[in-house]
Amino acid sequence: MAEGVHIFSPATVANVGPGFDILGFAINRPGDEILVEKTEGDDHIIVDRSGVGLPLDPERNVATVAIDSMLGHLGSRQKFQLTFLKKIAPGSGIGSSAASSAGAVYGSNVLLGNPYTREELVPFAMKGEETASGSAHADNVAPALLGGFVLVRSYDPLDIISIPGPEHIYCSVVYPEISIATEDSRKILKTTVSLEKAITQCGNVAGLVTGLITGNFRLISDSMHDVIAEPIRSFLIPEYDEVKKAALEAGALGCSISGSGPSIFALSKDEDTAHRAGTEMGKVFATAEIGSSVFISPVNKQGIRLLTKES
Amino acid sequence: MAEGVHIFSPATVANVGPGFDILGFAINRPGDEILVEKTEGDDHIIVDRSGVGLPLDPERNVATVAIDSMLGHLGSRQKFQLTFLKKIAPGSGIGSSAASSAGAVYGSNVLLGNPYTREELVPFAMKGEETASGSAHADNVAPALLGGFVLVRSYDPLDIISIPGPEHIYCSVVYPEISIATEDSRKILKTTVSLEKAITQCGNVAGLVTGLITGNFRLISDSMHDVIAEPIRSFLIPEYDEVKKAALEAGALGCSISGSGPSIFALSKDEDTAHRAGTEMGKVFATAEIGSSVFISPVNKQGIRLLTKES
Repeated sequence: MAEGVHIFSPATVANVGPGFDILGFAINRPGDEILVEKTEGDDHIIVDRSGVGLPLDPERNVATVAIDSMLGHLGSRQKFQLTFLKKIAPGSGIGSSAASSAGAVYGSNVLLGNPYTREELVPFAMKGEETASGSAHADNVAPALLGGFVLVRSYDPLDIISIPGPEHIYCSVVYPEISIATEDSRKILKTTVSLEKAITQCGNVAGLVTGLITGNFRLISDSMHDVIAEPIRSFLIPEYDEVKKAALEAGALGCSISGSGPSIFALSKDEDTAHRAGTEMGKVFATAEIGSSVFISPVNKQGIRLLTKES
Repeated sequence: MAEGVHIFSPATVANVGPGFDILGFAINRPGDEILVEKTEGDDHIIVDRSGVGLPLDPERNVATVAIDSMLGHLGSRQKFQLTFLKKIAPGSGIGSSAASSAGAVYGSNVLLGNPYTREELVPFAMKGEETASGSAHADNVAPALLGGFVLVRSYDPLDIISIPGPEHIYCSVVYPEISIATEDSRKILKTTVSLEKAITQCGNVAGLVTGLITGNFRLISDSMHDVIAEPIRSFLIPEYDEVKKAALEAGALGCSISGSGPSIFALSKDEDTAHRAGTEMGKVFATAEIGSSVFISPVNKQGIRLLTKES
């Protein structure tokens, strides 16, 4: 067998409340497993063990597009075989494409002797995101690579800031079995916002990062309001208001849309509350006869990791 | 002589770069001195030792309006005599009215045996601001009372958050001898902003508070961009672009309009740089034959303080 690494690439929540488009975090569950191996062939090989219908053409698969961006920068002609066991459903709103592209560049970077740091891999992984959604956003790939909460302060120049979070904080994600296209979800947003809402959003995002860094759960909770995207996008998710209410009544600190949905996430300060919130959120969908998957986990602080190294 | 306290009330910088309308800080120079004394009369008495033409009618002076708001809440009929030696020029954009109203409620609270904490005094001081500018903003009175950097996360409910700043950080303020009405300065702002600018502002304000809390001067510097108010309001200040350029070339971390101007502030990581930046900023105005005052001081961490207690 060729030299290879087996990696775990976590799901990620982007658009964290008022951190619309700029703040994301990684979670421990769900996550993809990817086996990355060097190959001597003329092109990358993609093997889909997940049965989710991943594109097998290296020019169309986010993972190989990301790898090629890295190889181009490095001036390497190495090819890789990628075997995917995806557990993050494509289109679920918790960074499925990001897990693939970030995981792929992470694994191939290891096999090349780590020419790049995790931070330096972000722009390559973003090329995969561009293939997936048409925009090279960083708010999923950066937390997947770095772990924890990550602020994308700016794209030009790219400025990725790890936000030290509280020692313990838990996430409940509920993924309802409905589908929303990321692209549509972007199009329905207005291209302007009122000055008042812009200021409110600024106040809340400043409060949220302050709460995260200083471990002030009261402030995290009070700041978890998105006045820009959530009021519009939540119309695309059936039962949204009821699900959010259930999470907050169960004691969650806050609840909002994960990415562009349809997944909904809640943050809690202990694991019991996170379980209770997730259960109650799932119940609302069940009552409306919408199937859903519930994932409970601590915020992942490490990001992508090696499971075993094979050679 | 009646029981009294002599207090120092600091100038404050609001609209700190991307923290438009939500972030302010206090400085050590300039600052007002106010002698607050109990009086047995039927009404408050205002004595103006500054010769700046303060309103002497207690219903029109920001300080007595603020005190009356506190006394009403407390159910007290006590009256005070306030003697002002103002060193913060009214209309300069560094919290002149805030220093008066915050100082007045602070001093009278002390004389009443401290029924309120500094935080609790903020809403009373805001009543003075409402009299001064028509809007009960907190981004000057809160840092005047609490010291340091203060985030006004929300007005409804009022949520005032002290942002722990770096151990050492210095401010240069240059006040050019021109006048801008706060009200006009508000009116020229557009009532909507592009979604893109709102997100940019959110990214920068989140970066700025993260930089302040973690002592990351690189991040503070990179985040000091206001894409909402500065591009419009800077047109009201002659030589603005040149003054800002001079501050940055002198090594300042960032430079923006203080409050609604005309004062311009710069932040620096050491005192020498702050002096150099202030000098260079003042020179630009001098070259344009505009007189200006330059103030250099550390960020004030303590807020309003007692100078001496007289009884």
